Amino acid sequence: MEHHMPDISDLTLEEKAALTSGLDFWRLEAIERLGIQSIMVTDGPHGLRKQAGDSDHLGLNASVPATCFPPAVGLGASWDPELAARVGAAIGTEAAIEDVAVVLGPGVNIKRSVLCGRNFEYFSEDPIHASDMGSGIVRGIQSQGVGTSLKHFAANNQETDRMRVSSDVDPRPLREIYLRAFQGVVEDEQPWTVMCSYNRVNGVYASEDPFLLTEVLRDEWGFEGLVVSDWGASNVRIEGIKAGMDLEMPSSGGLSDRQLVAAVKAGELDEADLDRSAERVLNLIRRATERAAAAGSLDVDAHHALAREAAGRSIVLLKNENGILPLSPSQKVAVIGEFAEKPRYQGGGSSHINPTRVDTALEQIREVAGDVTYAPGYVLPEAPEGIGMSGGKAPKQPESVLAELREAAVAAAKDAEIALVFVGLPDEDESEGFDRDHINLPDEHLALVDAVAAANPNTVVVLSNGGVVALPFADRVPAIVESWLLGQAGGSGVADVLYGAVNPSGRLAESFPYRLEDTAAFTSFPGEGQHVRYGEGIYVGYRWYDARKIDVAYPFGHGLSYTSFAYGDATARWTDEGIAISVDVTNTGDRAGREVVQAYVSLPGSAVDRAPRELKAFQSVEIQPGETVTVELLARKRDLRYWEERVSSWILESGDYVVEVGSSSRELHASATVSVSGDALVIPVTRDSSVGDAFAHPVAGPIARAEISASPFGAIMMTDGELNPMGNDMPLSRLVSFGVPAELVTRILAAGA
Amino acid sequence: MEHHMPDISDLTLEEKAALTSGLDFWRLEAIERLGIQSIMVTDGPHGLRKQAGDSDHLGLNASVPATCFPPAVGLGASWDPELAARVGAAIGTEAAIEDVAVVLGPGVNIKRSVLCGRNFEYFSEDPIHASDMGSGIVRGIQSQGVGTSLKHFAANNQETDRMRVSSDVDPRPLREIYLRAFQGVVEDEQPWTVMCSYNRVNGVYASEDPFLLTEVLRDEWGFEGLVVSDWGASNVRIEGIKAGMDLEMPSSGGLSDRQLVAAVKAGELDEADLDRSAERVLNLIRRATERAAAAGSLDVDAHHALAREAAGRSIVLLKNENGILPLSPSQKVAVIGEFAEKPRYQGGGSSHINPTRVDTALEQIREVAGDVTYAPGYVLPEAPEGIGMSGGKAPKQPESVLAELREAAVAAAKDAEIALVFVGLPDEDESEGFDRDHINLPDEHLALVDAVAAANPNTVVVLSNGGVVALPFADRVPAIVESWLLGQAGGSGVADVLYGAVNPSGRLAESFPYRLEDTAAFTSFPGEGQHVRYGEGIYVGYRWYDARKIDVAYPFGHGLSYTSFAYGDATARWTDEGIAISVDVTNTGDRAGREVVQAYVSLPGSAVDRAPRELKAFQSVEIQPGETVTVELLARKRDLRYWEERVSSWILESGDYVVEVGSSSRELHASATVSVSGDALVIPVTRDSSVGDAFAHPVAGPIARAEISASPFGAIMMTDGELNPMGNDMPLSRLVSFGVPAELVTRILAAGA
Repeated sequence: MEHHMPDISDLTLEEKAALTSGLDFWRLEAIERLGIQSIMVTDGPHGLRKQAGDSDHLGLNASVPATCFPPAVGLGASWDPELAARVGAAIGTEAAIEDVAVVLGPGVNIKRSVLCGRNFEYFSEDPIHASDMGSGIVRGIQSQGVGTSLKHFAANNQETDRMRVSSDVDPRPLREIYLRAFQGVVEDEQPWTVMCSYNRVNGVYASEDPFLLTEVLRDEWGFEGLVVSDWGASNVRIEGIKAGMDLEMPSSGGLSDRQLVAAVKAGELDEADLDRSAERVLNLIRRATERAAAAGSLDVDAHHALAREAAGRSIVLLKNENGILPLSPSQKVAVIGEFAEKPRYQGGGSSHINPTRVDTALEQIREVAGDVTYAPGYVLPEAPEGIGMSGGKAPKQPESVLAELREAAVAAAKDAEIALVFVGLPDEDESEGFDRDHINLPDEHLALVDAVAAANPNTVVVLSNGGVVALPFADRVPAIVESWLLGQAGGSGVADVLYGAVNPSGRLAESFPYRLEDTAAFTSFPGEGQHVRYGEGIYVGYRWYDARKIDVAYPFGHGLSYTSFAYGDATARWTDEGIAISVDVTNTGDRAGREVVQAYVSLPGSAVDRAPRELKAFQSVEIQPGETVTVELLARKRDLRYWEERVSSWILESGDYVVEVGSSSRELHASATVSVSGDALVIPVTRDSSVGDAFAHPVAGPIARAEISASPFGAIMMTDGELNPMGNDMPLSRLVSFGVPAELVTRILAAGA
Repeated sequence: MEHHMPDISDLTLEEKAALTSGLDFWRLEAIERLGIQSIMVTDGPHGLRKQAGDSDHLGLNASVPATCFPPAVGLGASWDPELAARVGAAIGTEAAIEDVAVVLGPGVNIKRSVLCGRNFEYFSEDPIHASDMGSGIVRGIQSQGVGTSLKHFAANNQETDRMRVSSDVDPRPLREIYLRAFQGVVEDEQPWTVMCSYNRVNGVYASEDPFLLTEVLRDEWGFEGLVVSDWGASNVRIEGIKAGMDLEMPSSGGLSDRQLVAAVKAGELDEADLDRSAERVLNLIRRATERAAAAGSLDVDAHHALAREAAGRSIVLLKNENGILPLSPSQKVAVIGEFAEKPRYQGGGSSHINPTRVDTALEQIREVAGDVTYAPGYVLPEAPEGIGMSGGKAPKQPESVLAELREAAVAAAKDAEIALVFVGLPDEDESEGFDRDHINLPDEHLALVDAVAAANPNTVVVLSNGGVVALPFADRVPAIVESWLLGQAGGSGVADVLYGAVNPSGRLAESFPYRLEDTAAFTSFPGEGQHVRYGEGIYVGYRWYDARKIDVAYPFGHGLSYTSFAYGDATARWTDEGIAISVDVTNTGDRAGREVVQAYVSLPGSAVDRAPRELKAFQSVEIQPGETVTVELLARKRDLRYWEERVSSWILESGDYVVEVGSSSRELHASATVSVSGDALVIPVTRDSSVGDAFAHPVAGPIARAEISASPFGAIMMTDGELNPMGNDMPLSRLVSFGVPAELVTRILAAGA
């Protein structure tokens, strides 16, 4: 159903203004006289949330049923962008069936703090991981002719005061950590839209920041699509248009349109700026209406099966002593914990989906193992209404009730060979809209684990949680299964892993610290007075723990398998694309399994601060028992550079880069070194440059060296032709005090400009 | 010898310009036609460094002999401002004798990182401690009619790239940590001058920052003196004059004078700005020349005795098991380690003094205990020439030589009852001009301690160091004596403590961490690209270790005594001046001793980030055996406030303040709670204010509450008259999207302006 699209010149000023703001909560304006249709966008990074009513943004009515795939916290743990692309394609198909033009996701913000309430919607504490996983989702959805909205751009890493707080981030962490995932997805996949975030970045609202929305996003990264505001993120609309924030959502009820028209008429806004945004909206509508109508209706079973596969691939086996897992169907099992019966499989907020069906672990285990005993162990609070954003804490059950439930659980555990204890975070503990202030499981869950573990040494803990939690019982139970929020088929995914139908291959995309106090942002989260300082700089997640040599419960990249893998030697060589890495990995066990091969790179002796190692490439690879697979990884040139603020550029430093390959950030099995000839860093010489800087400049250097050496300054500050430390650091502006003629300084400045 | 001083109006433009820049390295300009004399300033926070030659700033020739008192790292450990005042008075006397107008000290910068090469010149990781100790020095020196120069203003906390680096500090840490000691000294003692530092602060050179030099220093704190540049810190002279940097040192050879004259003539500089600075220089000269000529010459013995007392008071007994200390003269002792014979008693750089004499520990121990054996154990590198700023590392002795020395030491240790091992940091390891990159003692010192401790269980380690060091042997020796850099009488001070003539009462003014990786600034020191981000914010020193619950080797405030003290209950009450604290302390041992009673304050439930506890008052008090002393401390109102950037004010928060009293930051013996009715925090309402903020405003609040409750926004975002979290955080700028009339927003803004 292709339409003739009018040109921007066909539109009146008022029509152009109207196009840059929504028609209602989910739809863009139409211009009927020109045949421009209204298109619809919907929430849903891990499935569609198409609300029935136009303005029902708070989800008071159930949305159209859709398949709920694992949220990013789960899917991210698969470390498999191709799986993400398959999930994306399924979401794209569902969107096409519902005639949705753009799906508002994925979210690729970095998990700066373990406390961020929305971490379940994000992939990782690492930007390369988040970038590649986000690219998979975008590739998949857009393969169906449906657009995506890469969000939340940028540095939106907390819920506290999110509509105002300024994320105060220095240039290197901003570029290398917080913008990097956005950069990767934009450069690799060109999402149709990018969604700007609510917050301010270094004092400027993301919705009106020309640096972010134009200089970085378009001029540097080559973004060709449209920028849409997060819902309600538009502040001063005119500033947004100037900065490149093309589409305000939801509707302002015509207010913004009138402001824009008046501003153009008053000469306060260049009409060309408005044209630019309106044209981008037109282009989006054109792309959306070019898609052929979807054939057929939703194949609920097929998509549920994919959701089940994705759930199984998302599970991380944290601990498995004595081969207690996988279970055999013949073992007598007690299933304990209400989460087994009332699963928490998604988070609260805009991503909340009305699923086509929901599997529970209890029924799926019974499917495999027949009649198992079940004891709820605790009482979950009522699930919040609507889109599940919790409004507060439900009162706890009286201790007498909890004690009774625990006793029943202990009795069941004692009577079984294996006790499976399902614990985790209820909805009220984490959601869009607020941050956590601790990382503890509910007291009654911890008490339950302790009681059951004391009663039965073969206790397996199964976790349901969107953000990392402390695991004080880790030494007291033989096995821990991290099953996150896994989407509607999570219950069957868990059963698949517990009974070995799926050999677990998930890996942690965020470190599990022992204590909240160990985390990088502990002393600067969530900020105050409308500012949050990203004081840890580039040292986010494992970069922090590694740099400070802090023990963690489970490191970034960790995850066990039911089989075992052996690594051969690694090789690394420099190519035009970056460092090509090769390593042989052998499945040394007797069961097929997936290994997630991870390559970390460091540059000892770097001129700039660097983490001890940084993830640069990874691959999830299926290996048959006894089989050896040669895994080829590419640490891309783009990802080896650091941001040099002094020249506003990415710089590839020369040096001997060390590549470490392994199965987690702290289980590194092979390494190789490769010599890289990088970029020349030429820093313009200014009055503030040091003598050392001036000497290093290719043009000014020879002049400075020759003439300063011969000056009184050289006599004091140089030995054997080399600067001493004081001389090296002396700004050129001070040289006249040391007998260097002002004229010479001027000449050096001219040569080094 | 009083002089008639001319008025500023008597001076020509050229004369005024000349006055604002030095005559040479150490002297100010004279204006002979008006009888304005040249006055002299000299280095020397812990003693005078009056160079013989006018331009001999690098100390190629020895300076005039002067008493070398303990540098700040030592004196600070006394925790006794009155002792500092007595030392200051002695320095002032020496300055007066030498006709020195201003002594360039004290330095009150915070020890942000353990690595700062100049930490030995600074007092503390805590601003109240640094403030009170600095005030003592200023009070003492100025009591003799000699001026001081409070330095290095401001946020000069490293040597790396110190002439250019920008210390990027957020408002609260800047105010509460880095400026606080300067504020205290200025407000309490009015130093004659303040010396601006080399570095930039948040991008602006301290030497040309109107915020620091005028707005904060003069307008807020009421500073009445003159600002002098650190030597060579002047950048663009005209900007300095505009900002309030009155006196450029050293001479620019007339260049600055000509620039200033030209700028005034060209209308680029208001002559009134130049007048203001010139007048301050005149005032300084007036004060200096008002001092009566010093009577008599330096009483070398009396000042040496004071230096000895101060040294004894500076020593911190870190560990003393089994009462191994004090020693008895009858015990057979082996003295090991070349530091016992060649003491390191001061640091390299501008503070380097030519002492009137030097005591060594070895000779002083022999004085008490007769003939003790001595083994050097290692070879110290040659001391650097001049002012002791090391140019690099001397080659280490061959391992064979070291092994031989160690063997001899072990033999001596085996043959003695007690082994005293002197180890520490040689000059080349720490100095003005560079920072350390580790906190380890030299390998051969560590090997010596290990060998001796293995040979003799009664090994006492005596440390000489200007910055904290890791003590990997701490569990293997029964006693550790921290003797810092103690000035020229350090050797006798050490003997006094070892043999009990002095009962140690020094306390750590900086925490001893286990590992460099545990320190707050580890991931952001010393920065790069001419910027250093103070990413740890207010969490400096013990504030960091306490907040993050990190174990330390020895906590802030720690220090043992040869007697014992018991604490009674503490009381705390609110007064006009602050929290008046009272506690009974009893000497429960059989030896007179000093206890340093420390009061830490916290505010549980504070609306802003706060360290778990902050030092607010302390007192060193001498107590006789069996005696009980009631110690009265005042946590001053000024020190209980936090800086609220949103209103650019200090705010005393209301609440129940907890006072903890003890003998270190982690040995707290008594506590009390006091309810404080603080300042009202009224934040002006702007478009960026949240609805919650607006409701809290005294004027705008009632309007906002009544009318917003009745709006469609209220219907969605409020329950039972209270805002839900999303509503609470919503900026007023977004309300129109939620059915709130723009006119109402305008009215709320007007009421809350």
